Amino acid sequence: MTLTELAKANPEHWAKACAIRTLTLDAVAAANSGHSGMPMGMADVATVLFEKHLKFDASAPDWADRDRFILSAGHGSMLLYSLLHLTGYEDMTIEQIKNFRQWGAITAGHPEYGHAKGIETTTGPLGQGIANAVGFAMAEEIQRARFGRKVVDHHTYVIAGDGCLMEGVSQEAIALAGRQELSRLIVLWDNNGITIDGTVDIADRTDQVARFKASGWYVCECDGHDPEDIDRAITEAKRSRKPAMVACRTHIALGSAAQDTSKGHGALTDPQVVADTKAAYGWDHAAFEIPADVKAAWEAIGARGSAERADWEARFATLPAGKQKDFLRAYAKETPKNLASKVRALKKQISEDQPKVATRKASEMALAVINPVLGETVGGSADLTGSNNTKTADLGTFEPENRKGRYVYYGIREHGMAAAMNGMALHGGVRPYGGTFMCFTDYARPSMRLSALMGVPVTYVMTHDSIGLGEDGPTHQPVEHLAISRSTPNTHVFRPADAVETAEAWELAMSSTSTPAVMALSRQGLPTVRTEHKTKNLTAFGAYTLAEAEGKRRVILIATGSEVEIALKARDILQAKEIGTRVVSMPCMELFAAQDEAYRKRILPSGAVRVGVEAGVRQGWDQWLLGERGRETKAAFVGMDSFGASAPASELYEKFGITAEAVAEKAEALL
Amino acid sequence: MTLTELAKANPEHWAKACAIRTLTLDAVAAANSGHSGMPMGMADVATVLFEKHLKFDASAPDWADRDRFILSAGHGSMLLYSLLHLTGYEDMTIEQIKNFRQWGAITAGHPEYGHAKGIETTTGPLGQGIANAVGFAMAEEIQRARFGRKVVDHHTYVIAGDGCLMEGVSQEAIALAGRQELSRLIVLWDNNGITIDGTVDIADRTDQVARFKASGWYVCECDGHDPEDIDRAITEAKRSRKPAMVACRTHIALGSAAQDTSKGHGALTDPQVVADTKAAYGWDHAAFEIPADVKAAWEAIGARGSAERADWEARFATLPAGKQKDFLRAYAKETPKNLASKVRALKKQISEDQPKVATRKASEMALAVINPVLGETVGGSADLTGSNNTKTADLGTFEPENRKGRYVYYGIREHGMAAAMNGMALHGGVRPYGGTFMCFTDYARPSMRLSALMGVPVTYVMTHDSIGLGEDGPTHQPVEHLAISRSTPNTHVFRPADAVETAEAWELAMSSTSTPAVMALSRQGLPTVRTEHKTKNLTAFGAYTLAEAEGKRRVILIATGSEVEIALKARDILQAKEIGTRVVSMPCMELFAAQDEAYRKRILPSGAVRVGVEAGVRQGWDQWLLGERGRETKAAFVGMDSFGASAPASELYEKFGITAEAVAEKAEALL
Repeated sequence: MTLTELAKANPEHWAKACAIRTLTLDAVAAANSGHSGMPMGMADVATVLFEKHLKFDASAPDWADRDRFILSAGHGSMLLYSLLHLTGYEDMTIEQIKNFRQWGAITAGHPEYGHAKGIETTTGPLGQGIANAVGFAMAEEIQRARFGRKVVDHHTYVIAGDGCLMEGVSQEAIALAGRQELSRLIVLWDNNGITIDGTVDIADRTDQVARFKASGWYVCECDGHDPEDIDRAITEAKRSRKPAMVACRTHIALGSAAQDTSKGHGALTDPQVVADTKAAYGWDHAAFEIPADVKAAWEAIGARGSAERADWEARFATLPAGKQKDFLRAYAKETPKNLASKVRALKKQISEDQPKVATRKASEMALAVINPVLGETVGGSADLTGSNNTKTADLGTFEPENRKGRYVYYGIREHGMAAAMNGMALHGGVRPYGGTFMCFTDYARPSMRLSALMGVPVTYVMTHDSIGLGEDGPTHQPVEHLAISRSTPNTHVFRPADAVETAEAWELAMSSTSTPAVMALSRQGLPTVRTEHKTKNLTAFGAYTLAEAEGKRRVILIATGSEVEIALKARDILQAKEIGTRVVSMPCMELFAAQDEAYRKRILPSGAVRVGVEAGVRQGWDQWLLGERGRETKAAFVGMDSFGASAPASELYEKFGITAEAVAEKAEALL
Repeated sequence: MTLTELAKANPEHWAKACAIRTLTLDAVAAANSGHSGMPMGMADVATVLFEKHLKFDASAPDWADRDRFILSAGHGSMLLYSLLHLTGYEDMTIEQIKNFRQWGAITAGHPEYGHAKGIETTTGPLGQGIANAVGFAMAEEIQRARFGRKVVDHHTYVIAGDGCLMEGVSQEAIALAGRQELSRLIVLWDNNGITIDGTVDIADRTDQVARFKASGWYVCECDGHDPEDIDRAITEAKRSRKPAMVACRTHIALGSAAQDTSKGHGALTDPQVVADTKAAYGWDHAAFEIPADVKAAWEAIGARGSAERADWEARFATLPAGKQKDFLRAYAKETPKNLASKVRALKKQISEDQPKVATRKASEMALAVINPVLGETVGGSADLTGSNNTKTADLGTFEPENRKGRYVYYGIREHGMAAAMNGMALHGGVRPYGGTFMCFTDYARPSMRLSALMGVPVTYVMTHDSIGLGEDGPTHQPVEHLAISRSTPNTHVFRPADAVETAEAWELAMSSTSTPAVMALSRQGLPTVRTEHKTKNLTAFGAYTLAEAEGKRRVILIATGSEVEIALKARDILQAKEIGTRVVSMPCMELFAAQDEAYRKRILPSGAVRVGVEAGVRQGWDQWLLGERGRETKAAFVGMDSFGASAPASELYEKFGITAEAVAEKAEALL
């Protein structure tokens, strides 16, 4: 059909869709950058979705039982901003649209979670949104099992492009969703056949329909510019008992000179092109101007869900008070009052028993206390459950037959797991944690960065955190991964030294509202170093004095995790030579950096030489060893400056020179 | 069939396969760690492959036209080590097998490239091998197109497990191979239905056959314990004109008490289990003992290819001398003599013209000089060709219809691209480089780490290397990625300041034999700062004095890339106040660290305060600012300590305080 025919066939729909298209054209032209083609191509699908299917209330964007709408193809951000503006989201004013991509505006180049209501997740790095969506849909199932269908009964809709489907993480997401039969998950594929480098065909000939079906999805197709056909397809998709993918045949940059070309992917800023395109739409309004009737029609859509929302609130009020409280507490990311006392009791027990356990095992001990208290935790592992020690007895397995199960077998999918955990945390009501080997931080990186950027409290359980894992060798031995995680803003990297610090770290991770946590945990057994019980959570200070110097303090040894034991032994050597040596345990550099200067100076006073000990690269340590402005003291570091090797752990520590003797020697050499 | 029936059906085959199985059992028992089940399950498939199909000559492991065998399921390393030992690879002695997973042995927990001949790539991180293999197969096609079928005519075989197929990167690899119709690529899937956490079914129900077919593969199946059926299937796969996948139905840990269970995945070390399993095989030899007839049969297999190899050498000798030289030079990773002079001429031209160009554009200028000289380069981009500036006019597009094409449209597959580039470099004869946005280093990380660990000279063209990319916002703005790349051992991170440094960096990357390079390149235009031509490659020193202090040197500003311009302006401000200020450009920290101490001290003498300037996190800078042992000087840093934002680039630099004024102020404050 030509544009004129499309416009004639359904003028009201056409006007609404063109409101999205022209807002996009105007905003991109004003910013002189952005992505015009995708919103122009998917405007019809989005209009039908919002008008006929999406359960939402623009006046109550945080309504817990709303449908979630995820723009996985995040570069098409103007599609989302237009929809939010048109349907009447309060914060998405026309001024914000006019300030698209400008400093201080909530309309960033890609949708940023937290900038505006209605942005359910940050997208842009391709494949993330569709993989987040799997987590959203899992969280919904879990919540429904806990609180009942009358208060948890929504869908997750995703718009994904060819880029999302080419990224490997999409396969992890698709396969996981298929296995879990997430029937409330509906992906609308913008099948426009175009990528930045040309037609999709130059790099891919995958039959996406067959691919989704191979992983247990229901698939249907539609003409992405025919509102009736779109409606039919979405209706079909909703009826399916499997996750559903709707392949929407669309034209990128519809109606412009760049239609169906890779040029249409980017910014259409030429005034003539903008004018011609609007003319082709039959749109003769000023820039950013939406005719009152069109705006009113859109606002009616935005208000469509308000009665449903009110009904939901009434239903919610009929839940038992305890359930209501639990529901709201988990959404508010608050912990129950007894969590702290339970953790304290565990710490006391450990300080008494003084077990020698790997911190991954200590992590399981902490989880065994936390999971029963915190009903919203959802654990999992990327096929390393027994090694990550992530499953406690009470969790049960999350599967189609048991939606009350709180443990997810993610499969060998670290990236998909991380992205799904982001989705779960963003959905709300659940608190996800998941495990893999620390070295495979690499696989999960793109999503871990987004946890930090969005500020969602996901906990990454990264076991086998150094050469201490031994024989599996350098492919499995993290060396640079502590530095990598620490380099990322808004990330708490915990590397506990024993079971007490592990419990403290878990308490902090579970109490976090806006910072993800990386738990770096040992494979090998470690002695209890916190043998004296303190009710205070010392890990919360980031670093603290574990053993004070006897006599004049001449040396400070700073260590983390499995190397605290080595630092303590080095202290014995030095003290035997009457060299006063303090040992500082530093389980979380970021929290230490957040303490006031007085505290930091108390823990790391000048005047004594310092040696850092960590079985990783030095990068990230110098601020503690040398002082931020330099000149503070002399210092050295004992750690790794190469990849590891395959051999028993104790031999590796010897061979790489991470020993108490080496630490003591380096300290002496500085004196 | 029972084991007895299998043994009876083909006793010679059975004995050969059991030699693999029992070596595995003995080595894992001796190491008290490892993975027994996979080699035991895939021994039959591997035996048939090596006996009937694989073109190789154990006495000439580096024969360029050998078939490549890649163990993507790297945890089954004993399968590979057994094959290499049995077929008579000189370095894979029985002592090495006995020292499996021990310090100094070439038999690491996972196969490590470079440790032993016959290990074509390092595997263990799942999905890497299958994705490397795509690069191997592409390199072969490119070499065949250049040098002819009579000297380039081999296959790439991969053994992949369920873990490899669940990892997202496998989808990128499969789709790319399908699009490129890599008919010489054959994947043997160890379809044993078991992962570490249980049956595959707990996390995945993907129909792998349908999935591969959806991406254009030929698929056949076989009974992975029936040698005739395996032979038939591999023969079929070789005949196919598409890449082929053979789904081999196998039993993990065949014949042991742990057969068909996840327990069988790991180490079977119980002496009784080992004894019972050997008894079930009808194997009554001592540990590590291979009967002479079985060893002889295997050695005959190892020698099977020697005549073919001699024929190949004769054919190779008939190539024109220039072609032979080119072929051997590229395999030796040597550059032609005229590369240096061509780069020098370019540098001279730039110093004269003094263009203001983005370093991504400067990179294209360098490539335009390098690609015609270096016929073995293979460029590409993950769907950002126009932004990464990776395609020069002479390359042509690599596709089934044009195997002479040297430019690969990888699609939106950063991870698959990186893994394929590793495979290309490992295959030999080609020198790959590929581009994406710097921020998406995250997606490619697992393979980038392996470039470094293996020591293969892949070049990563990472453009849009800071907040300087502007409006696309924080999802696309690298902040921690320079630190991440620098934290990785054996990686050269180049961040050139202008077109001259960019050319120098490319020369270094193209001359590297064992270190990958990361090119961090700006989106925004940068002035030429190297306005005086020097024949010497100053970037090779890692850092050098770009502008000397006038008067007494009181300040040293150290900067990289786009911030060198800012440092020079800050110097103007300071010099105007008669504060003598040196500017050091530091395009490669790793190369600077590799200089002798005298040079480092000459560039960074003590006595002057130092300010580092880089639009990234401080992590990694302190060694240059504070001195490795501390106390050297006072210092400060101007950069980022948070994620970026969406706005025009110049505004972002202002808002985040990365300005000449801020640098000058910090310097003054230290004096």
